[in-house]
Amino acid sequence: MTRLSPRHPRYASLRIRARLAESARKGIVVPEGLIAHGRAEAFDYFLGERTTPSAREAIRAAATWLVNAERPVVSVNGNVASLAASSLAALQRVRPGLQVEVNLFHRTPGRAARIARVLTDAGVHDVLGVRPTGRIPGLPSDRAHVDRRGILVADVCLVPLEDGDRTEALQAMGKRVIAIDLNPLSRTARAADIPIIDELTRALDALTREVRRAGPRRPSEFDPFDARGALRAAQAAMARGLQRAGGRPRSEPRASPRSSPATPRRSRRTP
Amino acid sequence: MTRLSPRHPRYASLRIRARLAESARKGIVVPEGLIAHGRAEAFDYFLGERTTPSAREAIRAAATWLVNAERPVVSVNGNVASLAASSLAALQRVRPGLQVEVNLFHRTPGRAARIARVLTDAGVHDVLGVRPTGRIPGLPSDRAHVDRRGILVADVCLVPLEDGDRTEALQAMGKRVIAIDLNPLSRTARAADIPIIDELTRALDALTREVRRAGPRRPSEFDPFDARGALRAAQAAMARGLQRAGGRPRSEPRASPRSSPATPRRSRRTP
Repeated sequence: MTRLSPRHPRYASLRIRARLAESARKGIVVPEGLIAHGRAEAFDYFLGERTTPSAREAIRAAATWLVNAERPVVSVNGNVASLAASSLAALQRVRPGLQVEVNLFHRTPGRAARIARVLTDAGVHDVLGVRPTGRIPGLPSDRAHVDRRGILVADVCLVPLEDGDRTEALQAMGKRVIAIDLNPLSRTARAADIPIIDELTRALDALTREVRRAGPRRPSEFDPFDARGALRAAQAAMARGLQRAGGRPRSEPRASPRSSPATPRRSRRTP
Repeated sequence: MTRLSPRHPRYASLRIRARLAESARKGIVVPEGLIAHGRAEAFDYFLGERTTPSAREAIRAAATWLVNAERPVVSVNGNVASLAASSLAALQRVRPGLQVEVNLFHRTPGRAARIARVLTDAGVHDVLGVRPTGRIPGLPSDRAHVDRRGILVADVCLVPLEDGDRTEALQAMGKRVIAIDLNPLSRTARAADIPIIDELTRALDALTREVRRAGPRRPSEFDPFDARGALRAAQAAMARGLQRAGGRPRSEPRASPRSSPATPRRSRRTP
């Protein structure tokens, strides 16, 4: 494995990538999950790798919905388990009754069991979904598997890093969907009742803090949330980040000039 | 494997992802390569998934450099082989003398041989680099391996999807570097003499066309290129793409409204 220096300007990202690569080798994360993570990295980079004010509002609203829900469930895939198992355990601790269900787009019994193991090792209780016992209507059968004690009967679903088809199918069943997704343009983000446009672990940790701070429980009260406004704010933040980024100084010094008999290396200074 | 419908709005991307996932399972593409591809996808999405006018200028300049070079070499890693082996073969056909060298960040003898096989199966001739016989100064030994008949003695290196450290090291050796990279902010893009900010296969196919059209050869003449301008133009195009994207209509119809006893689902229409 690459030896990473903590001084490397991209140390945190590189560590996460290394962890995911290792999870891939262990069969916890699938290739498609790695590609999805790369996409998320790009979006987070433009966002400035921080929870925006708009995302914070979404997280507060989501915390209230989770507290007020009767049967809240978090859906967990390989990426989520690999990146955020301990954050999930912390969230479950502050919200007793929050179900955690292994729910995979690319399901095999082996993967489901391995992912459940990652969760329980991190302190998550009563992991559902290792054996599929229910079906989401409207999805191809290999994508429809759920636990009939969990997602099937949930009123509020927290779906990090979820697929667009499945997000829409959950809503079609009448569930309230809170998504965590770094892409404000994704179908998942656009379908969710509360889209949290933030990096997974940051969002879950902030959600845990907001749940702890939440006021008295008002069962089944779900205040409206301006999802479209949240998406617009996220997009605007990313557009600004993209424009700003070009002015940033290089993180490493330039290589020494080439000694070349041909045209002098003036190319960068040509106006 | 997921059955992909050609009618799916993201069919082309999904096919490429499926191909990469398959290459990963065959040990041709490494997990880090999949993550990198995901990042590239995000950038290409904002670029509008087309060759910009600025990228086209870079491609023309690159074509001239490749034609005028004495010892041009293309560096190939697992992602490049998986995505663009036949495009490379086509480029080699229009530019006889262009060396193609397998050059891996995560090298193992097995991977190098498998990647060489993918290239030769696609029609690439005389693939170098299966056995490392030279070293790039200044890099850790496991990243420094090159072929002494290829990159080591090249005057112009075409490096698609390359690592920043290695791009800078090649320049420090006095080589002219043409990079293909969808991230205008990457170290590779910022270090290259000619950064082509475009998707790999699009860029290689356009490069092939421009090489075919290029004027008479002027040996070792390398006209200056405004690399910084190219990067700025790419960034500006992406920032515009990001802002525009929010106005795009949804590619799938909305799910039917939920029947819910609680607060009516007005959240999306709240101003």
